[in-house]
Amino acid sequence: MPRILRINTRTKEFIFEELGEYAGLGGRALTSKLVNKEVPADCHPLSSSNKLVFAAGILANTGAANSGRLSCGAKSPLTGGIKESNTGGQFAQVLPRLDLLAIVFEDKPAQDAPFSIIEIYADKVVFKDATAIAGKDNYPAHEELKKMYGEKVVTALAGPAGEQCLAASTIQFSDPHLNPARSAGRGGMGAVMGSKKVKAVVLDPAASGRTNAADPEKFKVARKRWTEILTGHPVTGEGLPAYGTSILVNIINEAGALPTKNFRTGRFDDVADISGERIAEIIESRNGKTKEGCHTGCVIQCSQRYNDKNGDYLTSGFEYETVWGFGANCLVKDIDTIATMDRVCDEKGIDTIEMGCTMGVAMDGGILEWGDGDGALALLRKVGSADPMGRIIGNGTVFAGKAFGVDRIPTVKGQALPAYDPRSVKGIGVTYATTPMGGDHTAGYAVATNILKIGGDVDPLSREGQIELSKNLQIATASIDALGLCLFVAFAVLDTADAVQCICDLVAASHGIEFTADDFIALGVNTLKNELEFNANAGFTKFDDQLPRFFSEETLEPHNTIWDYSVEELQAAKV
Amino acid sequence: MPRILRINTRTKEFIFEELGEYAGLGGRALTSKLVNKEVPADCHPLSSSNKLVFAAGILANTGAANSGRLSCGAKSPLTGGIKESNTGGQFAQVLPRLDLLAIVFEDKPAQDAPFSIIEIYADKVVFKDATAIAGKDNYPAHEELKKMYGEKVVTALAGPAGEQCLAASTIQFSDPHLNPARSAGRGGMGAVMGSKKVKAVVLDPAASGRTNAADPEKFKVARKRWTEILTGHPVTGEGLPAYGTSILVNIINEAGALPTKNFRTGRFDDVADISGERIAEIIESRNGKTKEGCHTGCVIQCSQRYNDKNGDYLTSGFEYETVWGFGANCLVKDIDTIATMDRVCDEKGIDTIEMGCTMGVAMDGGILEWGDGDGALALLRKVGSADPMGRIIGNGTVFAGKAFGVDRIPTVKGQALPAYDPRSVKGIGVTYATTPMGGDHTAGYAVATNILKIGGDVDPLSREGQIELSKNLQIATASIDALGLCLFVAFAVLDTADAVQCICDLVAASHGIEFTADDFIALGVNTLKNELEFNANAGFTKFDDQLPRFFSEETLEPHNTIWDYSVEELQAAKV
Repeated sequence: MPRILRINTRTKEFIFEELGEYAGLGGRALTSKLVNKEVPADCHPLSSSNKLVFAAGILANTGAANSGRLSCGAKSPLTGGIKESNTGGQFAQVLPRLDLLAIVFEDKPAQDAPFSIIEIYADKVVFKDATAIAGKDNYPAHEELKKMYGEKVVTALAGPAGEQCLAASTIQFSDPHLNPARSAGRGGMGAVMGSKKVKAVVLDPAASGRTNAADPEKFKVARKRWTEILTGHPVTGEGLPAYGTSILVNIINEAGALPTKNFRTGRFDDVADISGERIAEIIESRNGKTKEGCHTGCVIQCSQRYNDKNGDYLTSGFEYETVWGFGANCLVKDIDTIATMDRVCDEKGIDTIEMGCTMGVAMDGGILEWGDGDGALALLRKVGSADPMGRIIGNGTVFAGKAFGVDRIPTVKGQALPAYDPRSVKGIGVTYATTPMGGDHTAGYAVATNILKIGGDVDPLSREGQIELSKNLQIATASIDALGLCLFVAFAVLDTADAVQCICDLVAASHGIEFTADDFIALGVNTLKNELEFNANAGFTKFDDQLPRFFSEETLEPHNTIWDYSVEELQAAKV
Repeated sequence: MPRILRINTRTKEFIFEELGEYAGLGGRALTSKLVNKEVPADCHPLSSSNKLVFAAGILANTGAANSGRLSCGAKSPLTGGIKESNTGGQFAQVLPRLDLLAIVFEDKPAQDAPFSIIEIYADKVVFKDATAIAGKDNYPAHEELKKMYGEKVVTALAGPAGEQCLAASTIQFSDPHLNPARSAGRGGMGAVMGSKKVKAVVLDPAASGRTNAADPEKFKVARKRWTEILTGHPVTGEGLPAYGTSILVNIINEAGALPTKNFRTGRFDDVADISGERIAEIIESRNGKTKEGCHTGCVIQCSQRYNDKNGDYLTSGFEYETVWGFGANCLVKDIDTIATMDRVCDEKGIDTIEMGCTMGVAMDGGILEWGDGDGALALLRKVGSADPMGRIIGNGTVFAGKAFGVDRIPTVKGQALPAYDPRSVKGIGVTYATTPMGGDHTAGYAVATNILKIGGDVDPLSREGQIELSKNLQIATASIDALGLCLFVAFAVLDTADAVQCICDLVAASHGIEFTADDFIALGVNTLKNELEFNANAGFTKFDDQLPRFFSEETLEPHNTIWDYSVEELQAAKV
């Protein structure tokens, strides 16, 4: 029976609990319900009242393809609202092997208390002094943990940014390739972990075994079909494996929606230097890998091993949004510099999307020259150090904008906007504006239907149909996040008639319950309702569900589009 | 006929306008109506859409005692809501001599445009290059302006903090004693001025003459009675002239409401070292002055000339809230250090209340030791420099709290709380929570009735009567601010039966209009309605009308009081 482990980070007490009212939930459905129910909406995100929740999905460790995503939930230090930050890595696969669905970190030690390593076992929790790794970057810290617990140790790490409680800080999770390269990137979850003086969480290295399905035969059939669905779709079976998410660089640039120079135009002159095709060439020429999974059981393999000029490992999980943020958005065209920035972000534990926009704002503020990749790299390296500039950068785009006196701030609810200009991909603009997560593409990826023509064809430049599209995608995404499935399964699901039924069969067979398409939808709707309720209690209103004014004041080349939804219209995108 | 001067800071065009729909208004009533009507509530405070308004009061330059206060209005970079920041100095007295009621600064030049000095004449506006004073501290900059325009030049200055658009930046106004010592302190008005690349505003040195009353005889009678009312009251006629506002140090400490160590207790062990009585002793021993007015025509004279150990001028406008913020709140007991901090704040152009709380947060974050006045002074001196720490400090309490990972943040709507703990002066707590200005004591100074027993006697420790008290004071204050009267006249007004009628007679006689007590109230109510409407459109809700949770979670010694109003209850304090 899966349980919830609650750990009091002040008293070091712990308790293994039955799921109780959280039964039937998992992933984002669990984190959002728990945070809404147990965290006071008006608390300071770094206070003892906040809770940090790691939750595996409903299908975690069942063997269903791409079911190993982890949800990290809390009140966000970045947005002030509820947050689910979704990540790959091995954590969600191993958690169920300890009969755990979720871990909840509660309370906090004194401001000057030392950091801990928290070891998680099936029957106990052990706090270890973290002096050996406190202050260390994530890769060296993970190397130390490997020495202590073995090569394959599964860890969660707060980087130097998280230790300083900076609002753009990530939690880094170890991947199947033994690197801490997977980020719960968005919303400052690392700061919540840091405020609780948790440097690392380590899962019992002896944990093993797969979670048995209640109906093994039915599950086997559904699992096989599920893999076929994913491997048979051109995006999940061909495009993503070949080029990773950076396949989008050329596609979005061609669509005139690649935000360039802090969202000033929709095309980047030097796009060829940073395209997915170019990246794949470089990877192959340096004996890297163009295909890797972020967790075992992934059949899409959109990650990669990006080596440096010497052929040594530099980074992985090198996403389109990162390439865009440090590339087109900052007019930087040297892809090795951009890859190094990705690595530095993983080392310090800071979100690459937030940092991409932060660097754009630093350039607008005259702190850096446009296109100065080395200067940007130097700024990122200050994060987590004693240099106060590092505190400015590590707190993200809104914060840096205030520090540098800049008024062009591409954020919603305090969170930086990703790599799709909302004026020319209007569906994603609706998601940015209305998701309870703040500026976020993953919460309802309308780029799929607007640009990739998956699940239909809604003109990206037109106002028509975008609100309904975003709303439906937000619901489906919340369900997918609850199941622990990778968001990219949605590409195949949207184009495959029996895909939702197949997912329902996986849930039903693994848990021995009824689970229908209606249940699938309800899971998402209820999750969003919890999130919207929390945000309303935290003081969010319809006026927070808007894009920054400059999107309504400046047209975007090449299509000369503008953002043109009213405050009231956008409310229809919310459940 | 008084006019409004509008200046486009980008095109350098200007226009003198009739009052039109703003006729009958002045001071805060004018700034708040104009900002609500003309500034989009969702704009970035540093963007071209924001407007900065300087407005003299309805009674400005009439010769009525204490009628020379100026209102500075804009969307606040600190709170994100509407702001009226009220200041002394000569500006509001001289503006009417140019037939001007208000100046509106609109639009903004490019980010890299040079700063200007703007000269204001009755028939023209001249932009001068500000290279000679850009980057300079306020006193040296004002010295340069004296050389250029004469000793008695009346100026408004953005300090180094305002030039950097920092959210705690003030606008400094020149006083009758030829120093730039009067601050429009709260809400970051200096940042709005800086964003528009205005370093200084200079009023025509040749401006002269008093505004003639429409009914000189009636005015003369009312004016005489008005002066009697003010000089006859024990607070405005004796207490404030003798000790300045720091007379409150002992009173509030005795009441157990002097926030000590970032609002942890209500009494300060070393209070004797920083009391108003001690300050007066020091001033007299160094040949300073215990009585000075912040503008000509002041009969209360609560300001002072505080000299250093060598007998040289150090600072003035050295208020109780400043003494508290750098003193009790930070456990600093050396009054000369505190006075020097006051001077440095005036030099850099940063709000002393915001800085007092910022230093407390820096101490909670381990950046400074508790009681380290010299360290605090060193941090303040960084503001406006190239050191990024200066940008952190200069953006105020919430910002510094995020930079330093601190969760004990004594602010409402992003603005630092002043020198009265709301748990033991509950009336002022209601004002902090509900005024559209954010944490602000001046918006409804319930300390008067709670502690000083002026205008009645409402027990400061009890929940009873505070909401109605605060609401009524908020209305009266908005009216007083519209008239350009000093807030301190309220002490006498609340205790004097014919005082409101006397004010009405002053307005009626000076403008030749009917003006009743109902009109006086309506002026305040309508002003508040404009402010609340703006804030609602900017996304503020009842959840923003709350104190930080720690006031409801921790009791305050010595009375063991707690903040205990519900979200809904507090809404009754709003008009």
